[in-house]
Parts: sequence; structure tokens; C-alpha cells
Amino acid sequence: MIYRRVALIGLGLIASSMAHAMRAGGLAGEIVGTAKSAETRATAKALFCDRVTDTAAEAVQGADLVVLCVPVGAMAALAEEIGPHLAPGATVTDVGSVKQAVIAAVAPHIPADVHFIPGHPLAGTEHSGPKAGFASLFQNRWWLLTPPDDADPAAVARLRSLLEAMGANVDTMDAPHHDLVLAVTSHTPHLIAYTMVGVADDLRRVTDSEVIRYSAAGFRDFTRIAASDPTMWRDVFLTNKDATLDILGRFTEELFALQRAIRLGDGDHLHAYFTRTRAIRRGIIEAGQDTDAPDFGRVMAPVKGG
Amino acid sequence: MIYRRVALIGLGLIASSMAHAMRAGGLAGEIVGTAKSAETRATAKALFCDRVTDTAAEAVQGADLVVLCVPVGAMAALAEEIGPHLAPGATVTDVGSVKQAVIAAVAPHIPADVHFIPGHPLAGTEHSGPKAGFASLFQNRWWLLTPPDDADPAAVARLRSLLEAMGANVDTMDAPHHDLVLAVTSHTPHLIAYTMVGVADDLRRVTDSEVIRYSAAGFRDFTRIAASDPTMWRDVFLTNKDATLDILGRFTEELFALQRAIRLGDGDHLHAYFTRTRAIRRGIIEAGQDTDAPDFGRVMAPVKGG
Repeated sequence: MIYRRVALIGLGLIASSMAHAMRAGGLAGEIVGTAKSAETRATAKALFCDRVTDTAAEAVQGADLVVLCVPVGAMAALAEEIGPHLAPGATVTDVGSVKQAVIAAVAPHIPADVHFIPGHPLAGTEHSGPKAGFASLFQNRWWLLTPPDDADPAAVARLRSLLEAMGANVDTMDAPHHDLVLAVTSHTPHLIAYTMVGVADDLRRVTDSEVIRYSAAGFRDFTRIAASDPTMWRDVFLTNKDATLDILGRFTEELFALQRAIRLGDGDHLHAYFTRTRAIRRGIIEAGQDTDAPDFGRVMAPVKGG
Repeated sequence: MIYRRVALIGLGLIASSMAHAMRAGGLAGEIVGTAKSAETRATAKALFCDRVTDTAAEAVQGADLVVLCVPVGAMAALAEEIGPHLAPGATVTDVGSVKQAVIAAVAPHIPADVHFIPGHPLAGTEHSGPKAGFASLFQNRWWLLTPPDDADPAAVARLRSLLEAMGANVDTMDAPHHDLVLAVTSHTPHLIAYTMVGVADDLRRVTDSEVIRYSAAGFRDFTRIAASDPTMWRDVFLTNKDATLDILGRFTEELFALQRAIRLGDGDHLHAYFTRTRAIRRGIIEAGQDTDAPDFGRVMAPVKGG
């Protein structure tokens, strides 16, 4: 047991996966949860919480670890609500996809005798909600922490030991760097996937059924990303605005260069570009961050009538 | 047995998968193959061809089905080479990702007593070469045929029965419509994925190792697509130029609208857009064109040291 009582605020994919992983590993004495929706609380009570409370203020009482698992845009109000109820010596962390905005929203409400160690698990699926969680979600995934310079080393080490016990690899960095790296590896790719799916949806010359039917040629990978939680992603783009716009600018520059090569029939430019990008894929597989099985090792349904 | 002798010209992922599938189903009396590289021919002979020949002209002799599996840019020279050697009554098909350009390149070289029925299997993985093939690649995947208006119905029906026996669902459409649909579902998504991976590769502020290490947050899906065969994709963009540029124009329009919403902090616009795109994912899963398993059902390696 690493924490005596863990309070999970917001009970979606990440919180439910954490609860399953903590239960599987015997890492928490008691897991208390809360969420705005009564239905979500009931699901959590049935599936993975020892106890649920109606409010966040109640949930955090006596907890030595509090995990904020709400959308980034809801962090400020939540922090204001729980601030006065946090136990001295407790650790507060979060799982938000941006870090500078979360720190600005949360830190002012955290008492001096409570440790605030912001975090971000690079794990998730396109499914959301309390039924989507599973214990192995964090296995071999990175969990980034952005502790302030004056963070208590013992509190950081304790949180790290919990995350590692759930299967994660833990790394620390400063918050601005986190937000830039994630703009490249996550936020901009998501925006692009959303855009491509929106374009396909818009095209009246190509019927919906054709886009769906023939999606296996590449498009379907984009739709998985673009099926992620809308509220979470709205908040990501609103709160990591500068880094996302910066990387988007780079993206459109490159895209225009390739578009020009297509228009001019410059095959050498295209071939050289497409060859260079192959190497990155190899790096990701060698780093254990994706499977080398063809097509992600998808298992497809049996043949159906055409 | 549906064809007595099948000649496969070009022995990469598609041809090798066809050979495995035909052997598994007893669909061809003899499978003859050829490729430019002697090493590829040797691999094919060892793994899936009954016989290999040094030239395409030899390979097609006496074949009642000839399948052109070379990059689109190589089709014209190949058709010119084999034209005089095709057996009367034979069927020639291809597996190119664009159809108008292939028809323009190939049709002039096909004798009047040979059936030319262009085709395109919407199946593939990010792996290429003769060792990448497997018999189930076409299971429940679409195989589009774009026969000319005056195509012989019996020849089309026979080819269709082969493709269906390999597990594919077959549909027919005209070539210009094919090229537009594929620009949406495949060509533009690939170009975008290549671009995003190229941007990440370029960024010196975000080291390569960070991009790779933290790729699970979304980016890695793009790298799979961007690891596809460079020659094949160069030819796709050079030969389906108009439709790709058309869809790219739509894409950048939409992207700029979303970029503007981010800049202005218009959360309602973003949320509405991200909600709409979710429905398309559901349609694809209901149509049996992707798995509903979280994260494509990826099976990841066990935890390694961080």
C-alpha cells in the first residue's frame, strides 16, 4: 500500500483505469471517488470505488492523495472547492493534457502544507467514461510529472512509486516544455485528424456510406483519434493555444510545400520526404511505444456480405 | 480452381498476399511471378510462387489472369512490354491505387481479344515487400473494380469470383469517381500523416527522442501511415493530382477555420466540431471496417525500464 486513501475527482477513462490498477496491485487502502453525474457515481461504486461521495469537498477529506481527473477547463472551480478541505501533508496531482494552464488554475488554491505535483499520463483510448477503464492502460506508457522547482522530493518519490507500480514509466520536465512536446506528439495530430474527418463528413459528392465503407485505405485511423472526448479536447486547444498554433503554423508550411510538389509533379521531393518519415516509425517501434504487427495487429470481424 | 494460370507482375505486399490466399483456397492452377529484383524473385519462389521468370513478357505467356502489381508510375512501360505476349481471352487486372492514370497508361497496349478490368484492393499494411504478405489480408476488405462500359460480363464475373474467394467484398464504380473517393479516404489522409511526421522530425526544439518516446499520445498512429512505401505513394500523388489537390484545398479551409476558433477562444465551435466527427467513427465500426477494441486492440510489449 502506497497511499492510505486516494480520492479520484472525475471518474472517466483515466480515473477508472487508475482505480482498477490500484486495486489489482493493492496500492491504495481506500479508493474514494466523486463525479458530477449520479449515474457515473453509481457505476464507479459498482465497478471500482470503495466509496463515492456527492461532492469533491467530501471526497478529499482525509485523503493522502487527491487526483484531479476532470477536463482542464473545470480545474479552477474544482481546486477552489477542495482547497479548504485538503488534509495537511496530502499530495494533489492531476491528469490534464496541458500543464501550464492547469498550474495557473489550481496552484493558487492549494494550501502551503499540501504538495501539488502536476502530472499527465500519456495513455488513453478513444473510449471515455467510467466503464472504459482497465487495469493495464498505463503499462509501459509514459507518465510525465511537472513538479515545481521547490517540490518536496519525498512527495514526488512517493507519487512516482505509485505510478510505476501501475506499470508506467515516469519522467519529469518543466511545464512549458511539456506543453510544447505534447503540441507536437498529441495536440496538433488530434486537430488534424478532427479536421480530416470533418472534411470527409462535409463532402456531398462522396456519400457518407462510401467514406465509411472504403475507410480501411487510411482514413479509419484518423476517425479513431477523432472519436476522442470532445470536452477534453476543446479544453486542450483553448488552454495550450500558443504551442498548438505554433506547431500548426509549421504543419501548414510543410503541407504547402508538399502540395506545391504535387502540383509541379516533383516526384523526387515527394519520394525523399516519404523516405525520411519511415525512419521515425522504426524509432517508435524500437522504443517499445507501438507494436510492429501489421495494421496495429487489428483483429477484424469475419467476412460479411458485401 | 478459378484460373488455370495466374501471372503476378511485381511481387510486393499485395501480390504475395494474393498468392498466399489463392494457394490457401486452391483458386489457381499455377502461380507464376516476376519482379525486377533477383532477390525478390528468389523469395517469391521460396514462399509462394510455383514458378518465377526473369521477365514480365515470359511470365504472362499462357496465363488466363495477369495481375499488374507494380507502382502506378511503372504501369505504362510494363503494359507495353507484355501487350504482345498476352494470351487471347486472358484477363488483365491491376491493383493500383489510382484508376484513371492506370487506364490511360495500360489500355492502349492491351490487344482487343484480352479483357482489361482495372482493380484496387483497399487493403494493405505499413509493411512492404514479398515477405510482408499473408493470406487473410483481403478478408472483409473492399476490392473496387472499374471495368469499362463495354467490359465482358463473364470476364468481370470470373474475376469477381476470385476476389470474393480470397475474402474480399467487391464493388464496381467508374474510374473518376474511384479517384475522388480515394482522395478522401486514403490519399489526402496519407499526405497529411506524412506532413505531420515530417514536422515532428524537423523540430529541433523537441528532440527526436522525445517525439518518439511520447508518441503514444496520438502521433504514433500517423507514423504507421507515414511508414508506407515511398515509391507507391509518390506515384499516387503524381497521378491523382487533381482530386488530391481538390480535397487538400478543402482540408486547409477547414483547418484554418479551426485554427481561428482556437485563436479566438471559440470553445463552442470546437466542441460542436469534435462531437460531429464522433458519429463517423461509429459508422465505420458498425460497417465492420474497423475494430471497436480500444486503441485498435494493440498488444503492447511488457513494461521495460524507463
